[in-house]
Amino acid sequence: MNLSMIRYILGNVLAVEGLLMAPCSIVGYLYGESQAEVYLILGICTLLCGLMLRWKKPENSVFYLKEGCVSTALSWILMSILGALPFVLTGEIPSFTDAFFETVSGFTTTGASILSDVEALSHVSLFWRSFTHWIGGMGVLVFVLAVVPLNGGSHINLMRAESPGPSVGKLVPRLRHTARILYIIYMVLTVVQVVLLLLGGMDLFEAITHSFGTAGTGGFGIKNDSITGYSAYCQWVITIFMVLFGINFNAYYFILLKHFKEAFSMEEVRAYLLIIAGAVAIIFVNILHSCQGVFDALTKTFFQVASIITTTGYSTCDFDLWPTTSKLILVLLMFIGACAGSTGGGMKVSRFLIVGKTVRKEFGSYVHPKSIKKIQMDGKPIEHEVVRSTNVYFMTYIMLFALCLFLISLEGQDLITSFTAVAATFNNIGPGLGAVGPTCNFGGMTVFSKWVLSFAMLAGRLELFPMLMLFHPTLWKDSFFSRKKN
Amino acid sequence: MNLSMIRYILGNVLAVEGLLMAPCSIVGYLYGESQAEVYLILGICTLLCGLMLRWKKPENSVFYLKEGCVSTALSWILMSILGALPFVLTGEIPSFTDAFFETVSGFTTTGASILSDVEALSHVSLFWRSFTHWIGGMGVLVFVLAVVPLNGGSHINLMRAESPGPSVGKLVPRLRHTARILYIIYMVLTVVQVVLLLLGGMDLFEAITHSFGTAGTGGFGIKNDSITGYSAYCQWVITIFMVLFGINFNAYYFILLKHFKEAFSMEEVRAYLLIIAGAVAIIFVNILHSCQGVFDALTKTFFQVASIITTTGYSTCDFDLWPTTSKLILVLLMFIGACAGSTGGGMKVSRFLIVGKTVRKEFGSYVHPKSIKKIQMDGKPIEHEVVRSTNVYFMTYIMLFALCLFLISLEGQDLITSFTAVAATFNNIGPGLGAVGPTCNFGGMTVFSKWVLSFAMLAGRLELFPMLMLFHPTLWKDSFFSRKKN
Repeated sequence: MNLSMIRYILGNVLAVEGLLMAPCSIVGYLYGESQAEVYLILGICTLLCGLMLRWKKPENSVFYLKEGCVSTALSWILMSILGALPFVLTGEIPSFTDAFFETVSGFTTTGASILSDVEALSHVSLFWRSFTHWIGGMGVLVFVLAVVPLNGGSHINLMRAESPGPSVGKLVPRLRHTARILYIIYMVLTVVQVVLLLLGGMDLFEAITHSFGTAGTGGFGIKNDSITGYSAYCQWVITIFMVLFGINFNAYYFILLKHFKEAFSMEEVRAYLLIIAGAVAIIFVNILHSCQGVFDALTKTFFQVASIITTTGYSTCDFDLWPTTSKLILVLLMFIGACAGSTGGGMKVSRFLIVGKTVRKEFGSYVHPKSIKKIQMDGKPIEHEVVRSTNVYFMTYIMLFALCLFLISLEGQDLITSFTAVAATFNNIGPGLGAVGPTCNFGGMTVFSKWVLSFAMLAGRLELFPMLMLFHPTLWKDSFFSRKKN
Repeated sequence: MNLSMIRYILGNVLAVEGLLMAPCSIVGYLYGESQAEVYLILGICTLLCGLMLRWKKPENSVFYLKEGCVSTALSWILMSILGALPFVLTGEIPSFTDAFFETVSGFTTTGASILSDVEALSHVSLFWRSFTHWIGGMGVLVFVLAVVPLNGGSHINLMRAESPGPSVGKLVPRLRHTARILYIIYMVLTVVQVVLLLLGGMDLFEAITHSFGTAGTGGFGIKNDSITGYSAYCQWVITIFMVLFGINFNAYYFILLKHFKEAFSMEEVRAYLLIIAGAVAIIFVNILHSCQGVFDALTKTFFQVASIITTTGYSTCDFDLWPTTSKLILVLLMFIGACAGSTGGGMKVSRFLIVGKTVRKEFGSYVHPKSIKKIQMDGKPIEHEVVRSTNVYFMTYIMLFALCLFLISLEGQDLITSFTAVAATFNNIGPGLGAVGPTCNFGGMTVFSKWVLSFAMLAGRLELFPMLMLFHPTLWKDSFFSRKKN
């Protein structure tokens, strides 16, 4: 294994994190908060560490998928450790486990919190907490790719390890260029949302932090009741932007290139919007009688559906009190998740599309045994490799889910709480049902459970394989021997 | 589609059912029950119907997998309709929906009941109820195969549609011969269990009905408290026989042929026993403090684990009161199920083995991209076809499960009840948790839910595809046109 390449990438990631953390202190200084210093000093230290690590450029830049996976997994873990330090050092989240959980939850855009009183945090910490969503949403490594020159092969292997969804798709060839454009789209959309929220009466701090949470499909709010206290206008703005950030960014890329036909005929995006429409319709009918009129029911339904399917996790009401059918639909949406290539989590709509098509094809072969049809997506045949890895993904997902569920069940909470706690973290959503419902938090869980769920969040965000690779015995044996040989 | 072949097979199935139903009346006459007549007359009518349908032998005996699926699905539906009639006509289960649910539950060896007072039934009805388990356990069509001569191709296509597990395996070549041997093993094991239960103090009626329930891994008892009231000796006998009936029958076949090495090195059987041991160990530790000593805890744990993993569904205690971890383990076992080629339900251990191996292979390819390894089972490579159909099975399973869950949720029961009601019927187990827990029953559900769950039981027993094929539009279009052409 190419350890010096991994060191070099980790260095870059740390440098970037330091560069992003230090300026946060400005927010603190503006509000006259003493915690600002911590962010400034820690940011500079992280930057220096990163620069030291990336000082010596690796001679051998050969870089396979395994190195891509390992460096991605290690980057995210390291980032989260350093990102958690300010919370500990300012004393706002004294326990390192809690701070680590909170930061992992931030970077993975989960939005599950251990805080029972969010409003007690300083502004600079609230800002950093929401900022982690924004950083994690698009992926740190993609950012590194956009800035740091690496060999061609390295890009694709890093991108494959970090980017959400079954395949990177057509955007691969000019990867650095693409990564930049994706980041520009991301920034522009965020800025537009900030402006619209300002128009709705939020102050700048509120508008920015909530936009960060929406853009990364994260879900950290700055109020104890999440979005409930804001006007219907603000709720609708957030709803619409949640849906927009859950769309495959390739669609925006196509629109930029004026390929409108391609943008609007993307099967995944259509399926995604159809699922949202279906879920809204069912829940709307199901909860109408308990709401204050049609508009109220529609606002609440649309917000919750968008929040859960995009795995954001903001809430405007306690959906744990909804009828069983509505709760079930939300739980199902938790697993479906947003589009591949968006900032959302979950299993991704395209994976379900591929699976649905596979099953349909199998049925066809029962009826017409001799017909040979290839599965198609957006009019092009899907490669066998993608179908196979989608299947493997599902299986791995189920096994890992069962394992986490077992470990969490040891805590002795009821089944619904245990199940949705794992579902909400593994799919990077945030709130579950029961004791981890929208009005509760993860603070009451045991230290052991918090570590398990932190792992679940990272595994979910990185699409399982990179995190699991860290536990592959051969890998470490190989890398140990290869170091001895060097 | 070859409709006359389907008619011929349905005729055979009905004739067999009539032949099995009429003699049940003897039990009634022995106990001097007036209900006996109903069974006698209905049995004879069913036999006559069957004989009429199979009167004209089809000229064209070409028979594809789709015909296999359709005739299997229709056979099971028809069997259940006729099997439900005695309950309605004797007035013991007046509602046809309830009687159909109960009979489907019997034939599919689910053991979910709508009766709150089982002991109120007549002996003849109790006998028929348990007998449906025994008939359904091995499969009616396999029985038909063993008796009725069909063309070679027809056998395999029927067998593929009815037999549990990913592949029929090595027993295929001499199919009729094999089907007979399997039935003989089945009968011998049942008789041995009857004798052992008699030695434990049960009367003949109790011993036979409980053995039927065990052999078919069904779970219908004749007491309101299932097996709780019987001695520890009887409980252990039933435990051991549940485990035995959950083993792949190929193992017994190998033992009969004195191929001991092959029998004891079957990977699936080893995995199955390992899973049982693991589950017993975890639950034992988890519930020990709430039991009266080690022996009591071991008896209860072993019984429940064997009952759930083999999808039998007998109970000796209310496991709905166990701690979360124990309940979770039981829920996980519900999905794993017994071995392929046994009488048990669930997804089957071998499917999980195949999936586990697939995932491990994928990881291997991340670390060593150039290695080409085929997945092996029992030392022989698994065909790509089997791996693919296992994946498709899992996906179809999940989608169908979600659909049933949604339909059941409309009833408004809590999530745990809805989830385990579907899990317990879809995997052919019987009791779930919550309002369908071991001390409760399905009688309180709506008529709509009962039909959905009846469908789930049939779909689960027939491994999804045959039941789903009935809904394939092309199939009916094809068969309509082919009839016009004839």
